[in-house]
Amino acid sequence: MTASALDTLDTPAAVLDIDRMERNIAAMQARIDAHGVRFRPHVKTSKCLEVIGAQLRAGAHGVTVSTLKEAEACFEAGIDDILYAVGIAPAKLARAMALKRRGCRLKLVVDNLAAADAIVAACRAEEDRFEVWLEVDTDGHRSGIAPDSDTLLAVGRALRDGAIPIGGVMAHAGSSYELHTEAALRALAEQERAGCALAARRLREAGIDCPGVSVGSTPTALAAARLDGVTEVRAGVYVFFDLVMHNVGVCALDDLALSVLTTVIGHQPDKGWIIVDAGWMALSRDRGTSKQSRDFQYGLPCTVDGTPIDGYLLVSANQEHGIMAAAGDAVPCNPADVVARFPLGTKLRILPNHACATGAQFAEYHAVRADGALAVWHRFRGW
Amino acid sequence: MTASALDTLDTPAAVLDIDRMERNIAAMQARIDAHGVRFRPHVKTSKCLEVIGAQLRAGAHGVTVSTLKEAEACFEAGIDDILYAVGIAPAKLARAMALKRRGCRLKLVVDNLAAADAIVAACRAEEDRFEVWLEVDTDGHRSGIAPDSDTLLAVGRALRDGAIPIGGVMAHAGSSYELHTEAALRALAEQERAGCALAARRLREAGIDCPGVSVGSTPTALAAARLDGVTEVRAGVYVFFDLVMHNVGVCALDDLALSVLTTVIGHQPDKGWIIVDAGWMALSRDRGTSKQSRDFQYGLPCTVDGTPIDGYLLVSANQEHGIMAAAGDAVPCNPADVVARFPLGTKLRILPNHACATGAQFAEYHAVRADGALAVWHRFRGW
Repeated sequence: MTASALDTLDTPAAVLDIDRMERNIAAMQARIDAHGVRFRPHVKTSKCLEVIGAQLRAGAHGVTVSTLKEAEACFEAGIDDILYAVGIAPAKLARAMALKRRGCRLKLVVDNLAAADAIVAACRAEEDRFEVWLEVDTDGHRSGIAPDSDTLLAVGRALRDGAIPIGGVMAHAGSSYELHTEAALRALAEQERAGCALAARRLREAGIDCPGVSVGSTPTALAAARLDGVTEVRAGVYVFFDLVMHNVGVCALDDLALSVLTTVIGHQPDKGWIIVDAGWMALSRDRGTSKQSRDFQYGLPCTVDGTPIDGYLLVSANQEHGIMAAAGDAVPCNPADVVARFPLGTKLRILPNHACATGAQFAEYHAVRADGALAVWHRFRGW
Repeated sequence: MTASALDTLDTPAAVLDIDRMERNIAAMQARIDAHGVRFRPHVKTSKCLEVIGAQLRAGAHGVTVSTLKEAEACFEAGIDDILYAVGIAPAKLARAMALKRRGCRLKLVVDNLAAADAIVAACRAEEDRFEVWLEVDTDGHRSGIAPDSDTLLAVGRALRDGAIPIGGVMAHAGSSYELHTEAALRALAEQERAGCALAARRLREAGIDCPGVSVGSTPTALAAARLDGVTEVRAGVYVFFDLVMHNVGVCALDDLALSVLTTVIGHQPDKGWIIVDAGWMALSRDRGTSKQSRDFQYGLPCTVDGTPIDGYLLVSANQEHGIMAAAGDAVPCNPADVVARFPLGTKLRILPNHACATGAQFAEYHAVRADGALAVWHRFRGW
C-alpha cells in the first residue's frame, strides 16, 4: 500500500487493507467449501455492505447478524437470507415480524422455553411463522441449551406443537478465543461439531424436524478437521483478523486488514514516550490480548506502510491520547531518541487487539488497495 | 423515574437521568463558583448539545473539547469559546484555522517546540493568529511540559517571538482516577494547582504573557481546597459520574446519571447466569474498576427504576451478550432461582464503569425525568 494515499486522511482513521481482506475471505471460503458445507459469515465484525458484498461474491450463502439493525441494513441492500444469532427478546418480535413481512427470510434463535412460547404466541397472533433455530451450548461459555438436556427436546416440541418451522440447531464455540494450539482448536472444533450434531440427532429421534446444523467461530472454522453432519459454518472476525486471532494462532500479522491510522502529537522524551492521537475512542478499550501468550497492550504500531515497529507497543490509552513506548526487552539506549525517530506529525498505523471492537469506534472505513486507490466505506451502527 | 417510560424503548439503550445530571451540574458549578474562578466543562463525556446547554445555563464559561469534530459541533450550536485540549497535530491546523475564520474563538494547546513552530508558521502563512495555551505536566501521567523545565520557556518564547497570543497554561491531573482518599485527592489537586501556577510564574518572570491558569479533572476539581492563582477549572465526567468515580470517592451511586437499559434474553440456570442483551457493544470494553477497591466487572445491574440489585454484577460481556451473575459473597442458595427472579423479558439498567466510554457506544441518549417524560438527545461522533 502506498503511504501517499493515507497522508491525505485526517487522523485517527480506520484503514482497511482491501487486498488482505479479500485474501482472508477467499481463504475461509475455500476452507469451508472443501468441507462441502455452506458458509454464512457473521457481519457484526464489519457492519459494512462493501465487505459483506465481497463475502457473498466469494461464495457465502446468507449472513449472520447480531442485531436487528444489521438485519434491516442487510435486507435493504438486497440480502434476504439472514440468521439473527442472538436469543430473541419477546419485545423485539414485532420489529422482527415487520422485517419478515417485507420479504426477509429472517431466522430467529432461541435457547429457552419462554422464548419459544413467546414466538409461538406472536406467530399465532400475527398468523405468520418465523423459521427458528435452537441454540446449543457446546463449550459452556455463554448461551445455549445443553445438547443432552431435556430442555432441548422441550423447546423443540414447543416450537413443533406451535407449528413453527425449525431451521436447525446452531452453536458458537466462543471459548476458542482462549486457546492457542492447533490441537486444542481442533479438539474444540470437534466438540462444537459433535455437540451440535448430537442435538440434531436427539431432536430428529424425537420426531422433530431439524434440517440444519450450524457451527462456527473463526478459530474453530479454520481448525475443524471434519464437519460430518454439519450443514453450515459461521465466522466473523476472520474477515479482518486481529491481534487476538494472531495469538490464537489462526493468522499471521500480515493478514490483519484493519488498522488505525494515527499521528504523533508529542513526546515525553525522558520516558521514551511517543504521544499519538489514537486513544481508546479510536482503538476501543478492548484488551483481549491481556491474558494471551503475548500482551499487545492497546495495539501494535506499524509504519504507515504497514510494517510493525519492532519492540514498540501502544502501552496506554486515554480518550484521545495514546502512549507508544518501547516494550519488553526493546528499551532503547536513549529514550530521547524517540523524538528524532518519530517526529511530530509522523503517521503510524496501529494493529488492534479486536477488530470488531475497534471497527465499532468508527463511522466509516478508509479502504485502500495496494495501488493506493482509496474509498470510504460506511458502517451501520446501533440496534 | 417511572419504569413505564422506559418500557417503550428498544434495548440496549443509553438512559440519561436528567434530574441527576442537573444535580451534578449544579453541584460542580457551585463548588467552582465558591473558589471564585471560571468553569469550562469538558464536553467529551456527553458530546451532546442538550447536556452542554445545561452546563452553560448553570454558569459555565465556554467549553473544552477533545476533537475538532466536537469543536465544530459546538460552534455550529452557537458556542464560540472553545479550548481544544489535545496537543495539535500540524496537519490539523488548516481545519482549525477554517473554524477560527468562521468566528470561533478556538484555543489550541501545545506541549513541544515543534508544534509551537508549526503554529507560528501556519499563522504567518495565513496572516491570522490562534490563541495558544501551554500544556503543563503536573503528575507525569501523559502529555505536557514539566513546569520547572527549560522547554516551558523555550515554547513560550517561540510563541511570543512568533507573535502568537498565549492564553495561559493548562494541566490535567489525570492520575487522580487512581486515587481513592480525600487526602490524596486534595494533595494531587494542590500539586496540579501549584505546578500550573509555577509554570505561569516562570513564564511571566521571563517576560512572556500568561494570563490564564487552567486546571482540572473531576476528582481534583471537587477535592481542591484552594485555587490561588487559578483562573479556570475544567472537568468532564462529573456530569454523569460513573462507577470509576464512585470508587474514587467523589460521588454516590445515586449520582450516576447514565445507565444502559437492557432486557433479559435467557439464562443458564445451573450456573446462576442471567443473559442480557447489553454486551460490550453497549457497555464498551472499559474495565476501569478492575484495579480499584471494588471491581464492578462490566457494570452494576439495577432494577428498571434504578435500584442497584444487591450482590449481582455484569460479570462478562461479548459483543451483544452480557452475563449477569451473583458476585462475591452473594451467591444465591439455588442458582436456578435466577429464572424466577429475572424472567425472560425483564428490563434492567446497568450502571457503567466509565460514562465517557459507554456513552460513546450510542448514537443518542434517552433522557428521562422523574415524571417519566422522555426525550431523545443526539450525540456527535467521530473526529
